[in-house]
Amino acid sequence: MTSLPKAIRIVEVGPRDGLQNQPRTLGVEEKVEFIRLLGEAGLRDIEVASFVHPQWVPQLADADTLIPRLPANPLIRYSALVPNMKGLERALNSGIRRIAVFTAASETFNRKNINMGVAESIEIFRPVVERALKEGVSVRGYISTCFVCPYEGPISKEKVADVTRALLALGVDEVSIGDTIGAATPLEVETTVGHLVALFPASQLAMHFHDTYEMAIANVYASLKLGISVFDSSAGGIGGCPYAPGATGNVATEKLLYLFDRLKIETGVSLTRLRQAAQYINSTLKAA
Amino acid sequence: MTSLPKAIRIVEVGPRDGLQNQPRTLGVEEKVEFIRLLGEAGLRDIEVASFVHPQWVPQLADADTLIPRLPANPLIRYSALVPNMKGLERALNSGIRRIAVFTAASETFNRKNINMGVAESIEIFRPVVERALKEGVSVRGYISTCFVCPYEGPISKEKVADVTRALLALGVDEVSIGDTIGAATPLEVETTVGHLVALFPASQLAMHFHDTYEMAIANVYASLKLGISVFDSSAGGIGGCPYAPGATGNVATEKLLYLFDRLKIETGVSLTRLRQAAQYINSTLKAA
Repeated sequence: MTSLPKAIRIVEVGPRDGLQNQPRTLGVEEKVEFIRLLGEAGLRDIEVASFVHPQWVPQLADADTLIPRLPANPLIRYSALVPNMKGLERALNSGIRRIAVFTAASETFNRKNINMGVAESIEIFRPVVERALKEGVSVRGYISTCFVCPYEGPISKEKVADVTRALLALGVDEVSIGDTIGAATPLEVETTVGHLVALFPASQLAMHFHDTYEMAIANVYASLKLGISVFDSSAGGIGGCPYAPGATGNVATEKLLYLFDRLKIETGVSLTRLRQAAQYINSTLKAA
Repeated sequence: MTSLPKAIRIVEVGPRDGLQNQPRTLGVEEKVEFIRLLGEAGLRDIEVASFVHPQWVPQLADADTLIPRLPANPLIRYSALVPNMKGLERALNSGIRRIAVFTAASETFNRKNINMGVAESIEIFRPVVERALKEGVSVRGYISTCFVCPYEGPISKEKVADVTRALLALGVDEVSIGDTIGAATPLEVETTVGHLVALFPASQLAMHFHDTYEMAIANVYASLKLGISVFDSSAGGIGGCPYAPGATGNVATEKLLYLFDRLKIETGVSLTRLRQAAQYINSTLKAA
C-alpha cells in the first residue's frame, strides 16, 4: 500500500476564488472578518484578493484597500492574483508578500478567459515573476482546465506537463493543477498527476479541485497516494456558479478536513473553527 | 495501474433502505410508480420491501400488498429483507424471488438493531436461508457497520471476514459490506476490503456505502480498484435521517452513474431516466 503524506498544507482560496462569481459583492469589513475567521481556524495560506482589472471582477475590486486591513500574523501567508505588470504594481503597493499568476492547459479556455494564448501568457508573466521575486515576493502559478476543457474536451497529460514546466522555469515555487469544471475522475488524476510527479517534485505541485460532480474527495485521495501534499479549497465550498443552483464550486475546506482528520493526516486547522468561518460566509452571502 | 471492472451491477435499495426512515409513509401506488421508474431506467436489482415486523418499520408495512403489484419483468430481480422464518413465510406468499438477511460486524450494533448477537443471528438465518433456497428463492446477506460502529468505534477486518464467511457458509450468493454510518475512508476500504478479496471471491462481495460525510464516491473508487463490481445505492440519495437536515443516506445512484459513465464502466442504467425516478421520489417525499 502506498504511504500517504503525514501532513498536508491547505491553500484556502475562498476569499478570492470563492467570492469572484457571487451575485452579492461583499464589503471590505465583511471580507476582513471572513479572512480573520479563516486565520483563527489555523489556515496559513489564504488567497485574499485579485489584481485583475476591477471591471473584470467587480466582486474583487477592493484588493488595494482590503489587503492593508488584514490581521497581521507572521504565520499567515496572504496571496493575491496578478495578471500583468500593472497588477503587480498594485500588489506591491498593497504590501502583499505572495502573488499568483494564472494560465490554462487549454488554448481555447485561456483565450476565452484571459484573451491570449498559453505561450503568450507565459511571456506576459516572465517579467512579472522576475520583478516580484526581486522584491522578495513569492509567486505561485495556476493552471486551469488540466483534465477537461469545456471547449476542447479532454486535455492531454503532456500539455499539462508543458505548461507546468514553463511556469516552474519562470520561478514560481508551486504550481496549482486545476480541475476547473470539476469533471476529473480519480482515473484521470492517476494518469495526469502520475505523469507530473514523474517529471517534477511532488512538493511543488498543488491540486485544485472543484466539486461540481462531487468527485473532489475521490480525486484528493488519488492525489495523496501520488505524493501530493498541497490542496486548494474554499470554506463552505463557496464559488459555484450563481446561475446554476446547487452547482458546487471549489471543494469545501471542511470536506478536506474531514478526510484528513480521518486519515490522521495533520493540517493544523480546526474543523470546528473552520465551520464557524464557513457559516459566517454562507450567511453573509445570503444576506440582502 | 490496476485495471478497473468493465461493467458493474447496481443494487438499487431506495424503495427499502431509502424509505424506511422517512417521516412520510408512501402509499402502495406511489411505491409502485417509483419502482416502475427505477426499472425503466434500466436497474435490474431493486430491493423493494422488508418483511420485518410492521411495528418496527411502519413505512414498509405494506410489503405483502406491494410486491404482487410490481411490474412483471423477467429481467428485473426484486428483493426484500427477511428477518426470520415468519418473515420468510410472508415473503414466499408474496411471490418475491429474492430475499436478504442482515446482521452486523459489531456485536453492540446488532444487539441494538435486531436485539441479538451476531452468532445468534447467523443461527436464526440458517433455516431461513435453507428453506428459501429449497423454494428456489435466492438469498443475499447484509453486514452492517463493517468499518466503524457508532457504539464500538473501529471494526477489525478480521471480524468482518468472520461474519462474511459465516454468511457465505449459509448459502447466500452475495454479501453486501455496509458502511452504515458513512464514516469509512478509502484507506479503511483498502484495508478491510483488501482483506476480504484475499479471502473470498470479489464477485460475491457488494459494497454498501452511505454518503454521510461525502466519502462514498472515493470509497467506491477504492473498491473498484480492488475488483468489486456490485454496489448498493439509492435514487436521489434518499435514506438520510429525517431529523438531521442535510444528512445524506445511501450514496445516490446518480452519483455512482456519473462516476461509472466517466470511467466508461458499463451499468446498463440511463442517467437521464434515473434522474426522473430520483425527481419523482424526492417530490413525492416532500408532498404533504
